Amino acid sequence: MVKEHLPLEEVWQLLRARWTGRRLPVERIPLQQAHGALLAEDIVSPINVPHYPASAVDGYAVLSSSTSMATAATPAILDEGQYQWVNTGSFVPPDFDSVAMVEDTSLKDGNLYVYVSLSPGANLRPVGEDIVKGQIVAHFGDAVDPNLMALFYAIGMRELPVLSRPKVVFIPTGDEIVPRGHVEDPSYLPPGKVMESNSVMLECLFEKWKTPLFIGPHVKDDLKSLREALLKAAEEYDLVLIGAGSAKGKRDFTAEAIEHEGELLFHWVLMKPGRPALLGAVKDKPVVGMPGFPMSTMVVAWSVVYPLVELLMKGNLNEEKFLDDAMGTKEKLKASLLMSHTSPQGISEWLRVRAVQLGSKRYVWPLSGGSSSMRATAEADGFVLLSSKTYECPKGKELEVRLVRDVPWESRALFQGSDDPAVAKLVSYVRRRGADLIIRSVGSLGGLAALARGEAHLSAAHLLDPETGFYNDSYIASFKPMSDRWKRFLLFYRQQGFIVKKGNPKEIKSIEDLARTDVRIVNRQPGAGTRVLLDSMLKDHGIDASLIKGYDDQTVTHLDASCRVAWGLADVALGIKSAADALDLDFIPITEEPYEFVIPEDELRHPGIAALLDAISDEEFREEVDRMGGYRWP
Amino acid sequence: MVKEHLPLEEVWQLLRARWTGRRLPVERIPLQQAHGALLAEDIVSPINVPHYPASAVDGYAVLSSSTSMATAATPAILDEGQYQWVNTGSFVPPDFDSVAMVEDTSLKDGNLYVYVSLSPGANLRPVGEDIVKGQIVAHFGDAVDPNLMALFYAIGMRELPVLSRPKVVFIPTGDEIVPRGHVEDPSYLPPGKVMESNSVMLECLFEKWKTPLFIGPHVKDDLKSLREALLKAAEEYDLVLIGAGSAKGKRDFTAEAIEHEGELLFHWVLMKPGRPALLGAVKDKPVVGMPGFPMSTMVVAWSVVYPLVELLMKGNLNEEKFLDDAMGTKEKLKASLLMSHTSPQGISEWLRVRAVQLGSKRYVWPLSGGSSSMRATAEADGFVLLSSKTYECPKGKELEVRLVRDVPWESRALFQGSDDPAVAKLVSYVRRRGADLIIRSVGSLGGLAALARGEAHLSAAHLLDPETGFYNDSYIASFKPMSDRWKRFLLFYRQQGFIVKKGNPKEIKSIEDLARTDVRIVNRQPGAGTRVLLDSMLKDHGIDASLIKGYDDQTVTHLDASCRVAWGLADVALGIKSAADALDLDFIPITEEPYEFVIPEDELRHPGIAALLDAISDEEFREEVDRMGGYRWP
Repeated sequence: MVKEHLPLEEVWQLLRARWTGRRLPVERIPLQQAHGALLAEDIVSPINVPHYPASAVDGYAVLSSSTSMATAATPAILDEGQYQWVNTGSFVPPDFDSVAMVEDTSLKDGNLYVYVSLSPGANLRPVGEDIVKGQIVAHFGDAVDPNLMALFYAIGMRELPVLSRPKVVFIPTGDEIVPRGHVEDPSYLPPGKVMESNSVMLECLFEKWKTPLFIGPHVKDDLKSLREALLKAAEEYDLVLIGAGSAKGKRDFTAEAIEHEGELLFHWVLMKPGRPALLGAVKDKPVVGMPGFPMSTMVVAWSVVYPLVELLMKGNLNEEKFLDDAMGTKEKLKASLLMSHTSPQGISEWLRVRAVQLGSKRYVWPLSGGSSSMRATAEADGFVLLSSKTYECPKGKELEVRLVRDVPWESRALFQGSDDPAVAKLVSYVRRRGADLIIRSVGSLGGLAALARGEAHLSAAHLLDPETGFYNDSYIASFKPMSDRWKRFLLFYRQQGFIVKKGNPKEIKSIEDLARTDVRIVNRQPGAGTRVLLDSMLKDHGIDASLIKGYDDQTVTHLDASCRVAWGLADVALGIKSAADALDLDFIPITEEPYEFVIPEDELRHPGIAALLDAISDEEFREEVDRMGGYRWP
Repeated sequence: MVKEHLPLEEVWQLLRARWTGRRLPVERIPLQQAHGALLAEDIVSPINVPHYPASAVDGYAVLSSSTSMATAATPAILDEGQYQWVNTGSFVPPDFDSVAMVEDTSLKDGNLYVYVSLSPGANLRPVGEDIVKGQIVAHFGDAVDPNLMALFYAIGMRELPVLSRPKVVFIPTGDEIVPRGHVEDPSYLPPGKVMESNSVMLECLFEKWKTPLFIGPHVKDDLKSLREALLKAAEEYDLVLIGAGSAKGKRDFTAEAIEHEGELLFHWVLMKPGRPALLGAVKDKPVVGMPGFPMSTMVVAWSVVYPLVELLMKGNLNEEKFLDDAMGTKEKLKASLLMSHTSPQGISEWLRVRAVQLGSKRYVWPLSGGSSSMRATAEADGFVLLSSKTYECPKGKELEVRLVRDVPWESRALFQGSDDPAVAKLVSYVRRRGADLIIRSVGSLGGLAALARGEAHLSAAHLLDPETGFYNDSYIASFKPMSDRWKRFLLFYRQQGFIVKKGNPKEIKSIEDLARTDVRIVNRQPGAGTRVLLDSMLKDHGIDASLIKGYDDQTVTHLDASCRVAWGLADVALGIKSAADALDLDFIPITEEPYEFVIPEDELRHPGIAALLDAISDEEFREEVDRMGGYRWP
């Protein structure tokens, strides 16, 4: 019976029930390949270490009885033949039973003066002191680490019995897929074709798991081909992964192929993303159908594939730990949500989060973007697995976070404010100074509000007050009394203007042109300085915003807005020159505005802020910004 | 000026002062080699992702305007030509602006019924939705992880600018050293010769650091050869490590060689072990002299070599984090000392520790064995770096522990009690059941006392009461009232007897023979059941212990005692048959004794104890014990 729509916990139960106690046969591998392997048997030393009585110091081997009662004032005086120089680690011949440290002796006219009384065995490492022949030096299940490697080498183990890791194959499928190696430059891909990149991610993941992964030949969306590939894979490998094709679309054949060749065990997991995951067994080998979006592939790798790898290797599954092993968790902690989140009910949800410390408290926020977003997945510091019972997560709620990157808690500053591509370049300069900076583009007003709520270390704004004609003053004043302790740093002046297609085909030159019926704009989100500027200009010219086509189409960055123009979704966007240049668009300057950092006084000592304030006068940074164009230094 | 006897903190200061800001030139490496590297520049996407308007679902591409006002009751009805089937990820041609999910449609007679009203862009991923051309997708300093690898592949990056890792060489030195590959079987080594195993440990450590390590040819203890090797290495590598020869023995030439060819920066570090460490610069390349004992080599690798690797790679040193990176810390925690420890004053000390949870509290205890002990280093769960200000550490003191292995806190049981080689084999059987067991041989009486103090999950004893002739009863009674809740489990009966050289050359047959002047015994520690047995037999026969040669020579395990006999340090030991067999010695049976586990009632639910109690009736275990000989099942 195929189980459908399983909670994650039942998936693990099913895996355990079927694969516990069924580990692969033990392998014997050469020592030099054993680093990181798990021992499949106890290791018993075939020799003593040391294998001879060894001096523990540089000095003279003597008979302890010949030094009896010796002191600094009344040394024992030994004739030649009664002592012998030994280095640390040297053999102490059976004629001697102890070693006098060189510091405790002096040599005069061939006589050795010993200034201490030695007991039998003093400064001497007896045979087998470290390891006795026959002793168990490592146990079943021990991971072979650098120290065990050296020890095994020293005792002469040249082959080790280890737990076998399954041989795994990943079969990419899909007509839309361009297999690896077929196209080197994705800028030549036709619409509808995508690079097969999941196998790149999986290869690295398996490298971290120290488990071999083979990439099978690409299979088209065709039941017959898939059945053949599946059957062959199940013969040759211990575990088969099939990329994409696990949902219920017209081209999804994985479930059907498994049912033909073996047994389908479950289909659909109550988690997001990764819901279309499925598991079967063909020739008694587990087969996992992995949904094709990058984030889906990854969470299914963590939560379904890795448990199988561990079961096949160890014969049991450590439920407390396997997810951390799968994900390579670097730090597990409780952290508070920086913004509220609504999770689907009855479904476990994987959140991609970034992390920051504000004051002494640690926060995370979820990254937006669906399971298709590679950027959000690559940007994440870590992940949160929300249980199926979680629904509303208010701001401040404590979550269990698994960080997969080192988060420099003390030195990471969080910027929330106005988007600017030159500011994005600062991250690199802050990092070179040993600190870190995260940029969240939430608009000028959003940034100031975040600052007022204590949710950022710094902000930046370019907000024109149409009443006064001044920038930022009145907006900042509205956040009193908090803003009394805010410092302002003018970073640069930047040109705002119209971003239009190359050659300006619609001949857009002034603000009035935006109201033309043949012109469609793309706007920015409310609270963005650029939108405030647009609204102010419209008001100045007495233009009704509701008449402007595309006024409600929002983007949150200059680059995003430019991109809409580049792809013909809009004719014009108000924005900055560097965003137009990046996409090879034309730029019609309209005005110049000051762009200011706003930083609470208390944060000036923060290592991230200190690095940032140092970085903004870095010559290299300024040259880079100058090359972007559209900026003027104060 | 050479600085001498530096505190560890000053070592790090010196390294920072000299090597900050001097990172190696940036390298460009092929993408497929980049996993784990650190980016040396920001990476800007050359393409949009997706590069075409893509359907986010399986369904029909439509014009949103053609579905206006559609509901389940009043569907929009579209003619052929007004819709087109698209799979998830398919190209949505410019004629359409949205996609109706297949679930929200039905197809009848060539007409598409759409049961929802779609907005422009519904279920459609616009061009650049995930990544906009020109966007920074990864920053300077980012570690290239599986997700970034896939992203870079997808956007067409085939070469990446990364921070260069230094090329490092390790030169083993020493006349006593047998270079790797020269002798395969160490049991053929003559006295005074040892396998060069430090390079095995270092290779694995550098593998974890993802930094290339080359092993140079072995150099004899000779100044001229060392100077030549040093000069050549400094020309070819970024960082030179010299194994052994850093102390002040007759054969220690590292300091002198560096002074000849370059500059000696410091010698002697106030830490234990690793004190003879030294640092110089030859041709401006850092040269580290590493003391030769395994544990010394390792702590110098962590505390001197790794900081140099990081400085050469990154240009700065993250003091909060580098030790954890160097050691591969898996968990950092505060834990209490299970037994008191005295640390040398004025010197930082590295402790090798094992860890256990007792009740809800986490404990560690230091492993004995000098810096030469490979066993203690390999056995450690983790390490503690005691500051130079630490002196007396009373039992219960909280220490900062860096664990380098996964410690199964919940399922690890601590055994303290009587030594037995058959019990040592139980570890493996407990682990196969997903739990863990640590064995500390502290003798029967020591084990019961530990149990009474709550410092063990179980104990084992075979203590004969000479008054009553019964085992264990009176000893356990002496721990009332704690022992009222102790359960006893008879594991087996075992033979005690005389362990003597093959052929029993001294013809030792009865207890009286031990008092002979030509016989030397090796004893066990006070509180060991075997010693209690010996004392009881001596008393029975009216033999004065003080007349027995070697009575005061103590060992703490049966195997240890046997080993002394095997190597002629004693003629006889009282002990068990399996220990005699392990070393191919003869065994003269004297008596049979019960060997009992003692387990507090509350611990019976502990997963480690439950696994142990299950394991003792494992057929395979019993067969293994039977093969050892000298045991009888109850």
